[in-house]
Amino acid sequence: LEELRSNKTLGERKIIELIFKQLEQMPQMPVPFGDDVSAYPLGKDKLAILKTDMLVGKTDVPPGMSLWQASRKAVIINISDFAAKGVKPLVLLASLGLPENLTLAEITEIGKGLNAGAREYGAFIVGGDTNEASDLIISLSLFGIAEKSKMMLRSGARVGDLVAVTGFFGKTAAGLKILLEGIKIENKIRNILIDSVMAPHARLKEGLALSETDAVTASIDSSDGLAWSLYEIARSSEVGFLIKQLPVAEEVKNFAEHIGMDPLELALYGGEEYELVITVKPELMDVAEEAVAKVGGKLIVIGKVISEKAVYLEAKGRRYTVEPKGWEHFKSNNV
Amino acid sequence: LEELRSNKTLGERKIIELIFKQLEQMPQMPVPFGDDVSAYPLGKDKLAILKTDMLVGKTDVPPGMSLWQASRKAVIINISDFAAKGVKPLVLLASLGLPENLTLAEITEIGKGLNAGAREYGAFIVGGDTNEASDLIISLSLFGIAEKSKMMLRSGARVGDLVAVTGFFGKTAAGLKILLEGIKIENKIRNILIDSVMAPHARLKEGLALSETDAVTASIDSSDGLAWSLYEIARSSEVGFLIKQLPVAEEVKNFAEHIGMDPLELALYGGEEYELVITVKPELMDVAEEAVAKVGGKLIVIGKVISEKAVYLEAKGRRYTVEPKGWEHFKSNNV
Repeated sequence: LEELRSNKTLGERKIIELIFKQLEQMPQMPVPFGDDVSAYPLGKDKLAILKTDMLVGKTDVPPGMSLWQASRKAVIINISDFAAKGVKPLVLLASLGLPENLTLAEITEIGKGLNAGAREYGAFIVGGDTNEASDLIISLSLFGIAEKSKMMLRSGARVGDLVAVTGFFGKTAAGLKILLEGIKIENKIRNILIDSVMAPHARLKEGLALSETDAVTASIDSSDGLAWSLYEIARSSEVGFLIKQLPVAEEVKNFAEHIGMDPLELALYGGEEYELVITVKPELMDVAEEAVAKVGGKLIVIGKVISEKAVYLEAKGRRYTVEPKGWEHFKSNNV
Repeated sequence: LEELRSNKTLGERKIIELIFKQLEQMPQMPVPFGDDVSAYPLGKDKLAILKTDMLVGKTDVPPGMSLWQASRKAVIINISDFAAKGVKPLVLLASLGLPENLTLAEITEIGKGLNAGAREYGAFIVGGDTNEASDLIISLSLFGIAEKSKMMLRSGARVGDLVAVTGFFGKTAAGLKILLEGIKIENKIRNILIDSVMAPHARLKEGLALSETDAVTASIDSSDGLAWSLYEIARSSEVGFLIKQLPVAEEVKNFAEHIGMDPLELALYGGEEYELVITVKPELMDVAEEAVAKVGGKLIVIGKVISEKAVYLEAKGRRYTVEPKGWEHFKSNNV
């Protein structure tokens, strides 16, 4: 995916900010620009929740990923943002750009993959359109209804809150390295790492369970990498983080040792990983843990919110500054 | 736009049908697959209305169209479908695929064009994302709220209903011929025809006014051409049409004479034209006309609904069969 790391210096965030600057803002927006979803008020207490995200073959589909997998993944990346906000996905629309040489079998595969992704999370695809394009483009729009008071935004983290995540990190970064750089490693580990790339899962159950508690103050998914996600919450909430324990998957430690790389690099600066990164009121941490455990998940405390607007990692007896970089298209300094 | 007329025989409709066949259908869908918008129930009487449509640089942006115009047009094509259903557009999300060499000025232009299109029709852009892609891709999702009983679907036309349209046809087809084939014609006519391509308008006022009457039995926009739109209503409503009077724009008659072409060809088989094509209960035709006149528009009766599942045109004392063709990507027999 060398295209991912184009030598342009205009990052995706800059582009989005530039476009948003041209837009007249809707009065009383229930969810601000730049959060993971958008909203429109439905009566006094409810919100229509909307999300759109695009999968582009050239930059989002690594070698070896089938059209079924790519189509399913396009759904997962949208569902994951709903998961992070604690919103149940209801229906999806699919706008497709298809290269002109696709076969009937390939188009069928796309339909099946979209359906599989939606049904896994209880949603239905109810419409869409197709177009001819040079790349494979799967642009999805997701709709749901949320209770305003239960939404988990990026902006509520407060100093003293705990930071927690729903799983271990680094597998997709390692998996992508195997796929893109042809690194060899024993099959058992290889399969797990590759599988994390090919068959991602959204933490929807966890997000919905957490939104039912009063414990979470801010939430985001880790689709652009853990470091990036922490910086996003930090920016939106005007706080910082001290990370004391970074949950790195065992297979990632193995892989990192194998290639002589720091596993923390893989865990921090990867991406295409769909864990939730949340901040929690310390006195309600057990409530949050219990809610997630009840739906079969786990919550791992990794640090706390600090007032200094920086992100630090304590590891090997030292304190490091985590860099604000991650998985961002158009940007030269990606992982 | 030779790419528009790719030599594939797999049309856009076939692709959509193939994909829909792979999808598990949501129980009690308020609006069936294949209508212009999708819906999700909001309580007993209301519907959340969703639409997504994609503009692709390669096939939807003719030579000479600016990025501002293309971005605005991307909004119009979505609004036009809401207009046809009688639904007020509220908010839009923009998912962008951007070639990596775009400048800041070009990106600014895209933002301004999107905003202009939305604000013209009272809507706001409230979110979106950007991605790197080979083509310019502007994929928009539009959200609105409708009263179920006021929605105008494709499926309600009944034998004996009148068919009406909101304007004159053929200008965009002629304009595209000028742009693509370099045909020369006097400036006054040229400007009007080119303008219809560069600055399309959606018949939103008309659609909203019509939805407040009880007169309309079926409705669609003419974005794929008048002939195609008639066939779509015919198919969904299981009826046919006898068209007796085809409103061809004066400039189109001039242009057609100039190049020795039948103006009816341009009016029937063009596309990228955003008039409404509706069927109306004959006893309420005056109510419909009045409603549209009140908002500054006009309604032109062009024929009637017949039981035979065909579309006929009476012209020059003869009856012709209108062909089920139009502006469809991927298809070899496009205009």
